[in-house]
Amino acid sequence: MIILVDMDGVLADFEGGFLARWRERHPNSFFVPIAERRSFYIRDDYPTELHASVAAIYHTEGFFEQLPPVAGALEGIRQMHGAGYDLRICTAPITSYRYCVPEKYAWVEKNLGADFIKRIIITKDKTAIRGDILIDDRPDIEGAYIPQWRHLLFDAPYNRHVQGQPRIDWSSWRDLLGP
Amino acid sequence: MIILVDMDGVLADFEGGFLARWRERHPNSFFVPIAERRSFYIRDDYPTELHASVAAIYHTEGFFEQLPPVAGALEGIRQMHGAGYDLRICTAPITSYRYCVPEKYAWVEKNLGADFIKRIIITKDKTAIRGDILIDDRPDIEGAYIPQWRHLLFDAPYNRHVQGQPRIDWSSWRDLLGP
Repeated sequence: MIILVDMDGVLADFEGGFLARWRERHPNSFFVPIAERRSFYIRDDYPTELHASVAAIYHTEGFFEQLPPVAGALEGIRQMHGAGYDLRICTAPITSYRYCVPEKYAWVEKNLGADFIKRIIITKDKTAIRGDILIDDRPDIEGAYIPQWRHLLFDAPYNRHVQGQPRIDWSSWRDLLGP
Repeated sequence: MIILVDMDGVLADFEGGFLARWRERHPNSFFVPIAERRSFYIRDDYPTELHASVAAIYHTEGFFEQLPPVAGALEGIRQMHGAGYDLRICTAPITSYRYCVPEKYAWVEKNLGADFIKRIIITKDKTAIRGDILIDDRPDIEGAYIPQWRHLLFDAPYNRHVQGQPRIDWSSWRDLLGP
């Protein structure tokens, strides 16, 4: 069984990393606590006049590489790997690729080990990737193909309005995937 | 029709770029003219004691970004794109990802335009990528899946010993793909 695992919001704590940097850089400015996030893209929860400052956070060198792991993610990945699942890290880069793309590789090397680097797939269109399951926090995943994989929605405050999709997190993956 | 196009040896002239830098850096050393290349990996055509120096060339910052395009490649891609084919740049990075991966993005942006960036797929396992055709200079492409795509072998001196695979280059693609 091949399982595609998304990176931001599933393995790497994009939300936590963003908010920490945002509060650090703009301590007196508006912010959205993580539990109150409602849109998939952070900027959509912020007023228009702050969009450029929001983007500046994740356009900063080191942002992606220094993201903390999502709680339970590293242990979950090790356990899935140990259980014999063929894991692939399947991630879409931001358009500003210069730091984001190599730092995603560095993140995987640092947090999952050098052997996991060969499991990285960088693509904007995840429907073009083969696999049995995709674990992803984004509800609407579209592309050129009807997906081969079954999408398990990784639970997050900004996707809780979505109904009718099977939901997963790092405490429940065994119940969904077994054994 | 979705066509996956490999990068090194098909779009980016890895061979030409390597040899120019090698001759520049080691003007009095052994070298293999491109027409006499026989192995897929350059180092395998060089004596063992030179392997580290060979790798040092493509581990240098700027190597991938500054590769010249393969003759006819940019025009071929533009024509294929204009003919309505859905193109994806499907490329496996070297293990030393730090310069290679972002520079592949920069190469595509510079040579094919910013719109092509979203068409890049970085993966070690090309069998996991869906498509109708894969144009690739590597004869033996293996991975977790039986490929969905038909492999058209992009012609190169180092793959001419391979028999029985349909062959393509930037002068013949119309004959193979039509219209």
